[in-house]
Amino acid sequence: MSRTVLAVLNRPSNSAAPRDPAAPLFSFADPLRPQLNVQDLGVTRGDGIFESISVVRGIPHALEAHLARFTHSAEVLELPAPDLATWRQAIRAVVERLDPVAEGFVRAVLTRGVEGDARPTGWVFASVSTDHSVARTRGVRVVLLDRGLRHDVGRTSPWLLSGAKTLSYAVNRAALREAARRNADDVLFVSSDGFVLEGPTSSLIYLRDGQLRTPATESGILEGTTQGDAFQWARQRGLGTGFELLTPIELGHTDAAWLVSSGRLAVPIRVLDGRPHPVRADMTADLNGYLLTREASVG
Amino acid sequence: MSRTVLAVLNRPSNSAAPRDPAAPLFSFADPLRPQLNVQDLGVTRGDGIFESISVVRGIPHALEAHLARFTHSAEVLELPAPDLATWRQAIRAVVERLDPVAEGFVRAVLTRGVEGDARPTGWVFASVSTDHSVARTRGVRVVLLDRGLRHDVGRTSPWLLSGAKTLSYAVNRAALREAARRNADDVLFVSSDGFVLEGPTSSLIYLRDGQLRTPATESGILEGTTQGDAFQWARQRGLGTGFELLTPIELGHTDAAWLVSSGRLAVPIRVLDGRPHPVRADMTADLNGYLLTREASVG
Repeated sequence: MSRTVLAVLNRPSNSAAPRDPAAPLFSFADPLRPQLNVQDLGVTRGDGIFESISVVRGIPHALEAHLARFTHSAEVLELPAPDLATWRQAIRAVVERLDPVAEGFVRAVLTRGVEGDARPTGWVFASVSTDHSVARTRGVRVVLLDRGLRHDVGRTSPWLLSGAKTLSYAVNRAALREAARRNADDVLFVSSDGFVLEGPTSSLIYLRDGQLRTPATESGILEGTTQGDAFQWARQRGLGTGFELLTPIELGHTDAAWLVSSGRLAVPIRVLDGRPHPVRADMTADLNGYLLTREASVG
Repeated sequence: MSRTVLAVLNRPSNSAAPRDPAAPLFSFADPLRPQLNVQDLGVTRGDGIFESISVVRGIPHALEAHLARFTHSAEVLELPAPDLATWRQAIRAVVERLDPVAEGFVRAVLTRGVEGDARPTGWVFASVSTDHSVARTRGVRVVLLDRGLRHDVGRTSPWLLSGAKTLSYAVNRAALREAARRNADDVLFVSSDGFVLEGPTSSLIYLRDGQLRTPATESGILEGTTQGDAFQWARQRGLGTGFELLTPIELGHTDAAWLVSSGRLAVPIRVLDGRPHPVRADMTADLNGYLLTREASVG
Protein backbone atom coordinates (compact mmCIF):
# COMPACT_ATOMS: atom_id res chain seq x y z
CA MET A 1 0.00 0.00 0.00
CA SER A 2 1.30 3.41 -0.95
CA ARG A 3 0.28 7.04 -1.43
CA THR A 4 1.35 6.99 -5.08
CA VAL A 5 1.42 4.01 -7.42
CA LEU A 6 2.63 3.76 -10.99
CA ALA A 7 2.24 1.08 -13.64
CA VAL A 8 3.89 1.38 -17.05
CA LEU A 9 2.13 -0.44 -19.86
CA ASN A 10 4.20 -2.67 -22.07
CA ARG A 11 1.63 -2.71 -24.87
CA PRO A 12 -0.78 0.23 -24.51
CA SER A 13 -2.25 -0.48 -27.92
CA ASN A 14 -2.89 -3.75 -29.77
CA SER A 15 -2.06 -2.23 -33.11
CA ALA A 16 1.46 -1.14 -32.16
CA ALA A 17 4.49 -3.20 -31.24
CA PRO A 18 5.03 -3.85 -27.52
CA ARG A 19 7.92 -2.11 -25.82
CA ASP A 20 9.30 -5.51 -24.86
CA PRO A 21 7.78 -8.66 -26.46
CA ALA A 22 8.77 -10.81 -23.48
CA ALA A 23 7.43 -8.50 -20.77
CA PRO A 24 4.04 -8.72 -19.02
CA LEU A 25 1.13 -6.42 -19.99
CA PHE A 26 2.22 -3.84 -17.46
CA SER A 27 4.83 -3.45 -14.74
CA PHE A 28 4.81 -1.48 -11.52
CA ALA A 29 7.44 1.21 -11.39
CA ASP A 30 8.70 3.73 -8.85
CA PRO A 31 6.73 6.97 -9.42
CA LEU A 32 9.50 8.99 -7.77
CA ARG A 33 12.10 7.83 -10.27
CA PRO A 34 12.37 8.97 -13.92
CA GLN A 35 10.35 6.76 -16.27
CA LEU A 36 10.07 8.87 -19.42
CA ASN A 37 12.44 9.57 -22.26
CA VAL A 38 13.09 13.26 -23.01
CA GLN A 39 12.29 12.53 -26.67
CA ASP A 40 8.79 11.25 -25.87
CA LEU A 41 6.35 13.22 -28.02
CA GLY A 42 4.08 13.39 -24.99
CA VAL A 43 6.46 15.95 -23.54
CA THR A 44 8.16 17.49 -26.58
CA ARG A 45 4.82 18.14 -28.36
CA GLY A 46 2.08 17.51 -25.78
CA ASP A 47 1.13 14.77 -28.25
CA GLY A 48 -0.96 12.37 -26.20
CA ILE A 49 -4.18 11.97 -24.26
CA PHE A 50 -5.26 11.38 -20.69
CA GLU A 51 -8.14 10.60 -18.36
CA SER A 52 -8.45 11.41 -14.66
CA ILE A 53 -10.60 8.90 -12.82
CA SER A 54 -11.72 9.34 -9.24
CA VAL A 55 -11.24 6.48 -6.81
CA VAL A 56 -13.61 6.36 -3.86
CA ARG A 57 -12.98 3.77 -1.20
CA GLY A 58 -10.99 1.65 -3.62
CA ILE A 59 -13.42 1.78 -6.53
CA PRO A 60 -12.59 3.66 -9.76
CA HIS A 61 -15.70 5.63 -10.65
CA ALA A 62 -17.30 5.74 -14.08
CA LEU A 63 -14.40 3.68 -15.40
CA GLU A 64 -16.14 2.60 -18.60
CA ALA A 65 -17.24 6.15 -19.42
CA HIS A 66 -13.65 7.32 -18.95
CA LEU A 67 -12.28 4.49 -21.09
CA ALA A 68 -14.82 5.30 -23.82
CA ARG A 69 -13.68 8.93 -23.84
CA PHE A 70 -10.03 7.78 -23.78
CA THR A 71 -10.73 5.79 -26.96
CA HIS A 72 -12.49 8.78 -28.50
CA SER A 73 -9.56 11.08 -27.69
CA ALA A 74 -7.18 8.55 -29.30
CA GLU A 75 -9.32 8.60 -32.46
CA VAL A 76 -9.28 12.40 -32.62
CA LEU A 77 -5.48 12.44 -32.27
CA GLU A 78 -5.12 9.42 -34.60
CA LEU A 79 -3.24 7.51 -31.93
CA PRO A 80 -3.32 3.70 -32.06
CA ALA A 81 -6.48 2.61 -30.21
CA PRO A 82 -5.78 1.81 -26.55
CA ASP A 83 -6.11 -1.85 -25.66
CA LEU A 84 -8.88 -1.34 -23.11
CA ALA A 85 -8.57 -4.80 -21.52
CA THR A 86 -4.98 -4.00 -20.59
CA TRP A 87 -5.79 -0.48 -19.38
CA ARG A 88 -8.69 -1.78 -17.26
CA GLN A 89 -6.44 -4.39 -15.70
CA ALA A 90 -3.63 -1.91 -15.03
CA ILE A 91 -6.03 0.63 -13.50
CA ARG A 92 -7.55 -1.98 -11.17
CA ALA A 93 -4.11 -3.26 -10.16
CA VAL A 94 -2.82 0.23 -9.40
CA VAL A 95 -5.92 1.09 -7.37
CA GLU A 96 -5.53 -2.09 -5.33
CA ARG A 97 -2.06 -0.98 -4.24
CA LEU A 98 -3.16 2.53 -3.31
CA ASP A 99 -3.59 3.45 0.36
CA PRO A 100 -7.21 2.75 1.40
CA VAL A 101 -8.06 6.45 1.55
CA ALA A 102 -11.54 7.87 1.16
CA GLU A 103 -10.68 9.62 -2.12
CA GLY A 104 -7.93 9.12 -4.63
CA PHE A 105 -7.49 9.44 -8.36
CA VAL A 106 -6.01 7.58 -11.29
CA ARG A 107 -4.46 9.31 -14.26
CA ALA A 108 -4.20 7.24 -17.43
CA VAL A 109 -1.87 8.67 -20.07
CA LEU A 110 -1.20 7.51 -23.64
CA THR A 111 1.40 9.34 -25.75
CA ARG A 112 2.63 8.89 -29.31
CA GLY A 113 5.88 7.59 -27.82
CA VAL A 114 9.49 8.44 -28.49
CA GLU A 115 10.02 10.32 -31.75
CA GLY A 116 10.81 7.91 -34.57
CA ASP A 117 10.07 4.83 -32.46
CA ALA A 118 6.45 4.22 -33.62
CA ARG A 119 5.44 2.69 -30.27
CA PRO A 120 3.05 4.60 -28.01
CA THR A 121 3.88 5.14 -24.34
CA GLY A 122 1.25 4.40 -21.71
CA TRP A 123 1.10 4.58 -17.95
CA VAL A 124 -1.35 4.63 -15.06
CA PHE A 125 -0.55 6.77 -12.04
CA ALA A 126 -2.63 6.75 -8.86
CA SER A 127 -2.45 9.01 -5.85
CA VAL A 128 -4.49 10.09 -2.86
CA SER A 129 -6.54 13.19 -3.60
CA THR A 130 -6.24 16.62 -2.07
CA ASP A 131 -9.14 17.55 0.20
CA HIS A 132 -11.87 19.25 -1.85
CA SER A 133 -14.42 19.60 0.96
CA VAL A 134 -14.07 23.40 1.32
CA ALA A 135 -14.67 24.02 -2.39
CA ARG A 136 -17.60 21.61 -2.36
CA THR A 137 -19.36 23.36 0.50
CA ARG A 138 -18.21 27.00 0.22
CA GLY A 139 -18.18 27.13 -3.55
CA VAL A 140 -15.82 28.90 -5.93
CA ARG A 141 -15.43 32.33 -7.53
CA VAL A 142 -15.43 32.02 -11.30
CA VAL A 143 -14.44 34.42 -14.08
CA LEU A 144 -15.45 34.14 -17.72
CA LEU A 145 -12.50 34.14 -20.12
CA ASP A 146 -12.44 34.23 -23.90
CA ARG A 147 -11.42 30.87 -25.42
CA GLY A 148 -10.83 32.56 -28.76
CA LEU A 149 -12.55 29.79 -30.76
CA ARG A 150 -16.10 29.54 -32.11
CA HIS A 151 -18.38 27.13 -30.23
CA ASP A 152 -18.68 24.84 -33.27
CA VAL A 153 -15.00 24.68 -34.14
CA GLY A 154 -14.84 20.98 -33.24
CA ARG A 155 -17.08 20.30 -36.22
CA THR A 156 -15.59 22.79 -38.66
CA SER A 157 -11.87 22.43 -37.83
CA PRO A 158 -11.27 19.03 -36.21
CA TRP A 159 -7.47 19.53 -36.26
CA LEU A 160 -7.93 22.04 -33.44
CA LEU A 161 -8.69 18.96 -31.27
CA SER A 162 -11.36 20.65 -29.18
CA GLY A 163 -13.16 17.33 -28.64
CA ALA A 164 -10.18 15.50 -27.12
CA LYS A 165 -8.53 15.42 -23.70
CA THR A 166 -4.95 16.03 -24.83
CA LEU A 167 -1.71 16.59 -22.94
CA SER A 168 -1.54 20.08 -24.53
CA TYR A 169 -3.13 21.83 -21.56
CA ALA A 170 -0.86 24.88 -21.19
CA VAL A 171 -3.74 27.23 -22.10
CA ASN A 172 -5.92 25.72 -19.38
CA ARG A 173 -3.17 26.32 -16.84
CA ALA A 174 -2.62 29.90 -18.05
CA ALA A 175 -6.35 30.60 -17.74
CA LEU A 176 -6.28 29.49 -14.10
CA ARG A 177 -3.37 31.87 -13.43
CA GLU A 178 -5.40 34.67 -15.05
CA ALA A 179 -8.30 33.77 -12.76
CA ALA A 180 -6.05 34.09 -9.71
CA ARG A 181 -4.95 37.55 -10.93
CA ARG A 182 -8.64 38.47 -11.09
CA ASN A 183 -9.20 37.29 -7.54
CA ALA A 184 -11.09 34.17 -8.62
CA ASP A 185 -10.65 30.43 -8.14
CA ASP A 186 -11.68 29.05 -11.49
CA VAL A 187 -12.62 29.83 -15.07
CA LEU A 188 -15.45 29.32 -17.52
CA PHE A 189 -14.42 29.69 -21.15
CA VAL A 190 -16.59 31.64 -23.57
CA SER A 191 -16.51 30.99 -27.32
CA SER A 192 -15.61 33.78 -29.73
CA ASP A 193 -19.26 33.77 -30.86
CA GLY A 194 -20.50 34.34 -27.33
CA PHE A 195 -21.47 31.02 -25.76
CA VAL A 196 -20.41 29.58 -22.43
CA LEU A 197 -18.31 26.45 -22.96
CA GLU A 198 -16.64 24.69 -20.03
CA GLY A 199 -13.91 25.19 -17.43
CA PRO A 200 -10.22 24.38 -17.95
CA THR A 201 -10.66 21.09 -16.05
CA SER A 202 -14.41 20.88 -15.51
CA SER A 203 -17.84 20.92 -17.13
CA LEU A 204 -20.59 23.38 -16.31
CA ILE A 205 -24.05 22.31 -15.11
CA TYR A 206 -26.77 24.72 -14.00
CA LEU A 207 -30.36 24.95 -12.88
CA ARG A 208 -32.57 26.84 -15.33
CA ASP A 209 -36.33 26.73 -15.88
CA GLY A 210 -36.53 23.90 -13.34
CA GLN A 211 -34.11 21.71 -15.31
CA LEU A 212 -30.50 20.67 -14.81
CA ARG A 213 -28.69 21.65 -17.99
CA THR A 214 -25.26 21.82 -19.55
CA PRO A 215 -23.87 23.62 -22.62
CA ALA A 216 -24.55 21.56 -25.77
CA THR A 217 -21.72 19.06 -26.26
CA GLU A 218 -22.03 18.64 -30.04
CA SER A 219 -20.09 21.89 -30.11
CA GLY A 220 -16.67 20.41 -29.51
CA ILE A 221 -16.69 20.62 -25.73
CA LEU A 222 -15.35 17.56 -23.96
CA GLU A 223 -18.18 15.30 -22.91
CA GLY A 224 -18.09 15.32 -19.14
CA THR A 225 -18.32 11.97 -17.38
CA THR A 226 -19.28 13.60 -14.08
CA GLN A 227 -21.83 15.76 -15.90
CA GLY A 228 -23.40 12.54 -17.21
CA ASP A 229 -23.63 11.18 -13.65
CA ALA A 230 -25.12 14.47 -12.43
CA PHE A 231 -27.83 14.14 -15.09
CA GLN A 232 -28.61 10.63 -13.81
CA TRP A 233 -28.91 12.09 -10.31
CA ALA A 234 -31.26 14.78 -11.63
CA ARG A 235 -33.52 12.27 -13.34
CA GLN A 236 -33.66 10.16 -10.15
CA ARG A 237 -34.81 13.30 -8.32
CA GLY A 238 -37.49 14.00 -10.92
CA LEU A 239 -35.61 16.92 -12.47
CA GLY A 240 -35.56 17.30 -16.24
CA THR A 241 -32.22 17.63 -18.01
CA GLY A 242 -31.15 19.39 -21.16
CA PHE A 243 -28.42 20.65 -23.46
CA GLU A 244 -28.45 24.14 -24.90
CA LEU A 245 -26.31 27.02 -26.14
CA LEU A 246 -26.00 29.43 -23.22
CA THR A 247 -24.80 33.03 -23.18
CA PRO A 248 -22.96 34.67 -20.25
CA ILE A 249 -26.00 36.85 -19.51
CA GLU A 250 -28.23 33.78 -19.36
CA LEU A 251 -25.71 32.03 -17.09
CA GLY A 252 -25.86 35.04 -14.76
CA HIS A 253 -29.61 34.48 -14.38
CA THR A 254 -29.54 30.74 -13.64
CA ASP A 255 -30.89 29.56 -10.28
CA ALA A 256 -27.64 27.75 -9.43
CA ALA A 257 -24.53 26.60 -11.29
CA TRP A 258 -21.74 24.11 -10.60
CA LEU A 259 -18.38 23.17 -12.05
CA VAL A 260 -18.23 19.38 -12.13
CA SER A 261 -15.20 17.14 -12.57
CA SER A 262 -14.10 13.64 -11.56
CA GLY A 263 -11.96 14.55 -8.61
CA ARG A 264 -13.50 17.68 -7.15
CA LEU A 265 -17.06 16.55 -8.02
CA ALA A 266 -19.65 19.37 -7.98
CA VAL A 267 -18.52 22.77 -6.67
CA PRO A 268 -21.11 25.53 -6.60
CA ILE A 269 -20.31 28.80 -8.34
CA ARG A 270 -20.82 31.41 -5.65
CA VAL A 271 -19.34 34.41 -7.48
CA LEU A 272 -19.45 34.95 -11.25
CA ASP A 273 -17.29 37.78 -12.64
CA GLY A 274 -17.37 39.45 -9.22
CA ARG A 275 -21.17 39.21 -8.76
CA PRO A 276 -22.70 36.87 -6.16
CA HIS A 277 -24.42 33.88 -7.75
CA PRO A 278 -27.18 31.88 -6.02
CA VAL A 279 -26.00 28.68 -4.31
CA ARG A 280 -28.27 25.72 -3.48
CA ALA A 281 -26.46 24.13 -0.54
CA ASP A 282 -29.09 21.39 -0.16
CA MET A 283 -28.87 20.28 -3.78
CA THR A 284 -25.07 20.50 -3.77
CA ALA A 285 -24.77 18.22 -0.74
CA ASP A 286 -27.26 15.75 -2.19
CA LEU A 287 -25.54 15.73 -5.59
CA ASN A 288 -22.06 15.25 -4.10
CA GLY A 289 -23.39 12.49 -1.83
CA TYR A 290 -24.75 10.79 -4.95
CA LEU A 291 -21.49 11.27 -6.89
CA LEU A 292 -19.44 9.85 -4.02
CA THR A 293 -21.57 6.73 -3.68
CA ARG A 294 -22.57 6.12 -7.31
CA GLU A 295 -21.93 2.60 -8.35
CA ALA A 296 -18.77 2.09 -10.31
CA SER A 297 -19.13 0.55 -13.74
CA VAL A 298 -17.68 -2.93 -13.55
CA GLY A 299 -16.81 -3.30 -17.24
CA MET B 1 31.21 12.08 -29.79
CA SER B 2 27.74 10.80 -30.30
CA ARG B 3 24.66 11.07 -32.55
CA THR B 4 22.51 12.19 -29.61
CA VAL B 5 23.61 14.05 -26.48
CA LEU B 6 21.63 15.03 -23.42
CA ALA B 7 22.40 17.36 -20.52
CA VAL B 8 19.98 17.77 -17.61
CA LEU B 9 20.15 21.13 -15.85
CA ASN B 10 20.44 21.12 -12.10
CA ARG B 11 19.28 24.70 -11.77
CA PRO B 12 17.45 25.83 -14.92
CA SER B 13 16.36 29.03 -13.21
CA ASN B 14 18.07 31.26 -10.64
CA SER B 15 14.83 32.04 -8.88
CA ALA B 16 13.94 28.42 -8.11
CA ALA B 17 15.68 25.92 -5.86
CA PRO B 18 18.21 23.63 -7.56
CA ARG B 19 17.31 19.98 -7.94
CA ASP B 20 20.41 19.08 -5.99
CA PRO B 21 22.31 21.87 -4.14
CA ALA B 22 25.57 19.93 -4.30
CA ALA B 23 25.42 19.05 -7.99
CA PRO B 24 27.08 20.92 -10.88
CA LEU B 25 25.11 23.31 -13.12
CA PHE B 26 24.24 20.51 -15.50
CA SER B 27 25.06 16.83 -15.96
CA PHE B 28 25.28 14.70 -19.05
CA ALA B 29 22.75 11.88 -19.10
CA ASP B 30 21.94 8.95 -21.37
CA PRO B 31 19.27 10.16 -23.83
CA LEU B 32 18.16 6.56 -24.42
CA ARG B 33 17.30 6.02 -20.77
CA PRO B 34 14.29 7.52 -18.93
CA GLN B 35 15.08 10.91 -17.38
CA LEU B 36 11.63 12.39 -16.69
CA ASN B 37 9.11 11.84 -13.94
CA VAL B 38 5.58 10.88 -15.10
CA GLN B 39 4.26 13.67 -12.86
CA ASP B 40 6.27 16.36 -14.61
CA LEU B 41 3.83 19.08 -15.68
CA GLY B 42 5.72 19.25 -18.96
CA VAL B 43 4.10 15.97 -19.93
CA THR B 44 0.87 15.89 -17.88
CA ARG B 45 -0.15 19.43 -18.97
CA GLY B 46 2.21 20.41 -21.79
CA ASP B 47 3.23 23.11 -19.32
CA GLY B 48 6.63 24.23 -20.49
CA ILE B 49 8.53 25.91 -23.29
CA PHE B 50 11.17 25.00 -25.83
CA GLU B 51 13.54 26.26 -28.49
CA SER B 52 15.00 24.36 -31.42
CA ILE B 53 18.39 25.66 -32.44
CA SER B 54 20.20 24.55 -35.56
CA VAL B 55 23.83 23.49 -35.30
CA VAL B 56 25.94 23.85 -38.43
CA ARG B 57 29.46 22.46 -38.35
CA GLY B 58 29.50 22.61 -34.58
CA ILE B 59 28.14 26.13 -34.16
CA PRO B 60 24.68 26.77 -32.66
CA HIS B 61 23.06 29.37 -34.90
CA ALA B 62 21.27 32.50 -33.72
CA LEU B 63 21.79 31.29 -30.15
CA GLU B 64 21.14 34.66 -28.52
CA ALA B 65 17.95 35.23 -30.53
CA HIS B 66 16.72 31.79 -29.43
CA LEU B 67 17.62 32.45 -25.79
CA ALA B 68 15.81 35.79 -25.94
CA ARG B 69 12.66 34.09 -27.23
CA PHE B 70 13.07 31.33 -24.60
CA THR B 71 13.03 34.05 -21.92
CA HIS B 72 10.00 35.66 -23.55
CA SER B 73 8.13 32.33 -23.64
CA ALA B 74 8.94 31.81 -19.95
CA GLU B 75 7.45 35.23 -19.19
CA VAL B 76 4.26 34.46 -21.11
CA LEU B 77 3.86 31.17 -19.21
CA GLU B 78 4.96 32.78 -15.92
CA LEU B 79 7.73 30.24 -15.53
CA PRO B 80 10.78 31.22 -13.45
CA ALA B 81 13.16 33.02 -15.80
CA PRO B 82 15.76 30.67 -17.29
CA ASP B 83 19.30 31.26 -16.07
CA LEU B 84 20.73 32.06 -19.48
CA ALA B 85 24.38 31.69 -18.46
CA THR B 86 23.71 28.09 -17.47
CA TRP B 87 21.65 27.33 -20.58
CA ARG B 88 24.33 28.85 -22.83
CA GLN B 89 27.00 26.74 -21.15
CA ALA B 90 24.93 23.54 -21.35
CA ILE B 91 24.08 24.13 -25.01
CA ARG B 92 27.72 24.68 -25.94
CA ALA B 93 28.82 21.62 -23.95
CA VAL B 94 26.21 19.40 -25.59
CA VAL B 95 27.10 20.65 -29.06
CA GLU B 96 30.79 19.93 -28.43
CA ARG B 97 29.96 16.27 -27.77
CA LEU B 98 27.81 15.89 -30.86
CA ASP B 99 29.17 14.07 -33.91
CA PRO B 100 30.86 16.60 -36.21
CA VAL B 101 28.05 16.41 -38.78
CA ALA B 102 27.20 19.14 -41.23
CA GLU B 103 23.81 19.81 -39.62
CA GLY B 104 22.40 19.02 -36.21
CA PHE B 105 19.99 20.62 -33.81
CA VAL B 106 19.67 21.40 -30.12
CA ARG B 107 16.34 21.35 -28.32
CA ALA B 108 16.22 23.29 -25.06
CA VAL B 109 13.22 22.49 -22.86
CA LEU B 110 12.06 24.12 -19.62
CA THR B 111 9.00 22.73 -17.81
CA ARG B 112 7.18 23.74 -14.65
CA GLY B 113 8.59 20.57 -13.05
CA VAL B 114 6.97 17.81 -11.06
CA GLU B 115 3.54 18.71 -9.72
CA GLY B 116 3.81 20.12 -6.20
CA ASP B 117 7.59 20.26 -6.32
CA ALA B 118 8.00 23.96 -7.28
CA ARG B 119 11.27 23.33 -9.12
CA PRO B 120 11.35 23.62 -12.90
CA THR B 121 12.84 20.88 -15.05
CA GLY B 122 15.31 21.77 -17.79
CA TRP B 123 17.29 19.84 -20.34
CA VAL B 124 19.23 20.27 -23.55
CA PHE B 125 19.07 17.54 -26.17
CA ALA B 126 21.17 17.51 -29.32
CA SER B 127 20.98 15.26 -32.32
CA VAL B 128 22.09 15.08 -35.93
CA SER B 129 19.44 16.47 -38.28
CA THR B 130 17.48 14.63 -40.91
CA ASP B 131 18.42 15.58 -44.47
CA HIS B 132 16.29 18.53 -45.61
CA SER B 133 17.98 19.03 -48.98
CA VAL B 134 15.05 17.72 -51.06
CA ALA B 135 12.55 20.06 -49.41
CA ARG B 136 14.97 22.97 -49.77
CA THR B 137 15.44 22.46 -53.49
CA ARG B 138 12.15 20.90 -54.66
CA GLY B 139 9.90 22.87 -52.28
CA VAL B 140 6.77 21.83 -50.44
CA ARG B 141 3.04 21.63 -51.07
CA VAL B 142 1.16 23.72 -48.50
CA VAL B 143 -2.51 23.89 -47.51
CA LEU B 144 -4.16 26.73 -45.62
CA LEU B 145 -5.96 25.61 -42.45
CA ASP B 146 -8.16 27.58 -40.08
CA ARG B 147 -6.43 28.29 -36.73
CA GLY B 148 -9.76 29.24 -35.20
CA LEU B 149 -8.35 32.32 -33.44
CA ARG B 150 -8.37 35.99 -34.46
CA HIS B 151 -5.01 37.38 -35.61
CA ASP B 152 -4.82 39.75 -32.61
CA VAL B 153 -5.72 37.23 -29.91
CA GLY B 154 -2.23 37.43 -28.40
CA ARG B 155 -3.00 41.00 -27.41
CA THR B 156 -6.65 40.57 -26.38
CA SER B 157 -6.42 37.16 -24.63
CA PRO B 158 -2.85 36.54 -23.51
CA TRP B 159 -3.85 33.38 -21.60
CA LEU B 160 -4.24 31.69 -24.99
CA LEU B 161 -0.42 31.81 -25.14
CA SER B 162 -0.22 32.51 -28.86
CA GLY B 163 3.06 34.39 -28.43
CA ALA B 164 4.97 31.56 -26.73
CA LYS B 165 6.68 28.39 -27.92
CA THR B 166 5.02 25.94 -25.52
CA LEU B 167 5.12 22.17 -25.22
CA SER B 168 1.37 22.12 -25.98
CA TYR B 169 1.85 21.45 -29.68
CA ALA B 170 -0.77 18.72 -30.28
CA VAL B 171 -2.76 21.03 -32.59
CA ASN B 172 0.33 21.67 -34.70
CA ARG B 173 0.84 17.93 -35.08
CA ALA B 174 -2.83 17.37 -35.95
CA ALA B 175 -2.66 20.10 -38.61
CA LEU B 176 0.28 18.32 -40.25
CA ARG B 177 -1.74 15.07 -40.34
CA GLU B 178 -4.61 17.00 -41.95
CA ALA B 179 -2.16 18.32 -44.54
CA ALA B 180 -1.05 14.78 -45.38
CA ARG B 181 -4.71 13.79 -45.86
CA ARG B 182 -4.99 16.70 -48.32
CA ASN B 183 -1.96 15.50 -50.24
CA ALA B 184 0.25 18.28 -48.93
CA ASP B 185 3.51 18.47 -46.98
CA ASP B 186 2.91 21.42 -44.70
CA VAL B 187 0.41 23.94 -43.38
CA LEU B 188 -0.13 27.67 -43.15
CA PHE B 189 -2.61 28.70 -40.48
CA VAL B 190 -5.23 31.34 -41.21
CA SER B 191 -6.80 33.43 -38.45
CA SER B 192 -10.58 33.39 -37.95
CA ASP B 193 -10.64 36.97 -39.27
CA GLY B 194 -8.94 35.97 -42.47
CA PHE B 195 -5.21 36.64 -42.23
CA VAL B 196 -2.33 34.28 -42.95
CA LEU B 197 -0.39 33.56 -39.76
CA GLU B 198 2.42 30.99 -39.74
CA GLY B 199 3.06 27.27 -40.13
CA PRO B 200 2.89 24.72 -37.30
CA THR B 201 6.68 24.78 -36.97
CA SER B 202 7.74 27.59 -39.30
CA SER B 203 7.29 31.24 -40.21
CA LEU B 204 6.18 32.51 -43.61
CA ILE B 205 8.23 34.91 -45.71
CA TYR B 206 7.30 36.01 -49.22
CA LEU B 207 8.28 38.28 -52.05
CA ARG B 208 5.72 40.99 -52.77
CA ASP B 209 6.07 44.36 -54.46
CA GLY B 210 9.83 43.77 -54.65
CA GLN B 211 10.13 43.34 -50.86
CA LEU B 212 10.72 40.37 -48.62
CA ARG B 213 7.85 40.39 -46.13
CA THR B 214 6.33 38.38 -43.32
CA PRO B 215 2.94 38.52 -41.57
CA ALA B 216 2.96 41.19 -38.86
CA THR B 217 4.29 39.70 -35.62
CA GLU B 218 2.59 42.06 -33.17
CA SER B 219 -0.41 39.85 -33.78
CA GLY B 220 0.57 37.05 -31.47
CA ILE B 221 2.51 35.00 -33.97
CA LEU B 222 5.79 33.58 -32.71
CA GLU B 223 8.64 35.80 -33.73
CA GLY B 224 10.75 33.74 -36.09
CA THR B 225 14.49 33.72 -35.51
CA THR B 226 15.18 32.39 -39.00
CA GLN B 227 12.80 34.97 -40.45
CA GLY B 228 14.91 37.64 -38.77
CA ASP B 229 18.04 36.22 -40.40
CA ALA B 230 16.28 36.06 -43.76
CA PHE B 231 15.47 39.76 -43.45
CA GLN B 232 19.18 40.46 -42.81
CA TRP B 233 19.98 38.52 -45.96
CA ALA B 234 17.40 40.57 -47.88
CA ARG B 235 18.85 43.88 -46.72
CA GLN B 236 22.38 42.73 -47.68
CA ARG B 237 21.00 41.99 -51.17
CA GLY B 238 19.37 45.42 -51.38
CA LEU B 239 15.83 44.09 -50.95
CA GLY B 240 13.40 45.97 -48.74
CA THR B 241 11.65 44.14 -45.93
CA GLY B 242 8.29 44.58 -44.29
CA PHE B 243 5.56 43.31 -41.99
CA GLU B 244 1.91 43.36 -42.97
CA LEU B 245 -1.43 41.64 -42.54
CA LEU B 246 -1.81 39.31 -45.50
CA THR B 247 -4.89 37.52 -46.81
CA PRO B 248 -4.86 34.09 -48.49
CA ILE B 249 -5.77 35.68 -51.84
CA GLU B 250 -2.86 38.09 -51.53
CA LEU B 251 -0.54 35.21 -50.62
CA GLY B 252 -1.67 33.42 -53.78
CA HIS B 253 -0.43 36.40 -55.82
CA THR B 254 3.01 36.77 -54.24
CA ASP B 255 6.07 36.33 -56.47
CA ALA B 256 7.54 33.62 -54.22
CA ALA B 257 6.95 32.33 -50.69
CA TRP B 258 8.94 30.23 -48.23
CA LEU B 259 8.40 28.47 -44.94
CA VAL B 260 11.41 29.22 -42.75
CA SER B 261 12.53 27.46 -39.57
CA SER B 262 15.77 26.81 -37.71
CA GLY B 263 16.33 23.25 -38.85
CA ARG B 264 14.86 23.05 -42.34
CA LEU B 265 15.82 26.65 -43.18
CA ALA B 266 13.94 28.14 -46.17
CA VAL B 267 11.76 25.78 -48.19
CA PRO B 268 9.94 27.26 -51.18
CA ILE B 269 6.18 26.82 -51.38
CA ARG B 270 5.63 25.21 -54.76
CA VAL B 271 1.95 24.36 -54.39
CA LEU B 272 -0.60 26.34 -52.39
CA ASP B 273 -3.99 24.70 -51.81
CA GLY B 274 -3.47 22.59 -54.90
CA ARG B 275 -2.41 25.48 -57.19
CA PRO B 276 1.18 25.85 -58.42
CA HIS B 277 3.00 28.75 -56.78
CA PRO B 278 6.01 30.50 -58.34
CA VAL B 279 9.39 29.33 -57.04
CA ARG B 280 12.59 31.36 -57.21
CA ALA B 281 15.27 28.67 -57.21
CA ASP B 282 18.12 31.21 -57.44
CA MET B 283 16.96 33.22 -54.44
CA THR B 284 16.22 30.07 -52.44
CA ALA B 285 19.72 28.69 -52.96
CA ASP B 286 21.29 32.03 -52.12
CA LEU B 287 19.14 32.45 -49.00
CA ASN B 288 19.86 28.93 -47.73
CA GLY B 289 23.55 29.39 -48.41
CA TYR B 290 23.41 32.53 -46.31
CA LEU B 291 21.44 30.83 -43.52
CA LEU B 292 23.89 27.93 -43.42
CA THR B 293 26.94 30.16 -43.16
CA ARG B 294 25.57 33.05 -41.09
CA GLU B 295 27.77 33.88 -38.22
CA ALA B 296 26.62 32.49 -34.91
CA SER B 297 26.06 34.99 -32.13
CA VAL B 298 28.72 34.40 -29.54
CA GLY B 299 26.82 35.75 -26.54
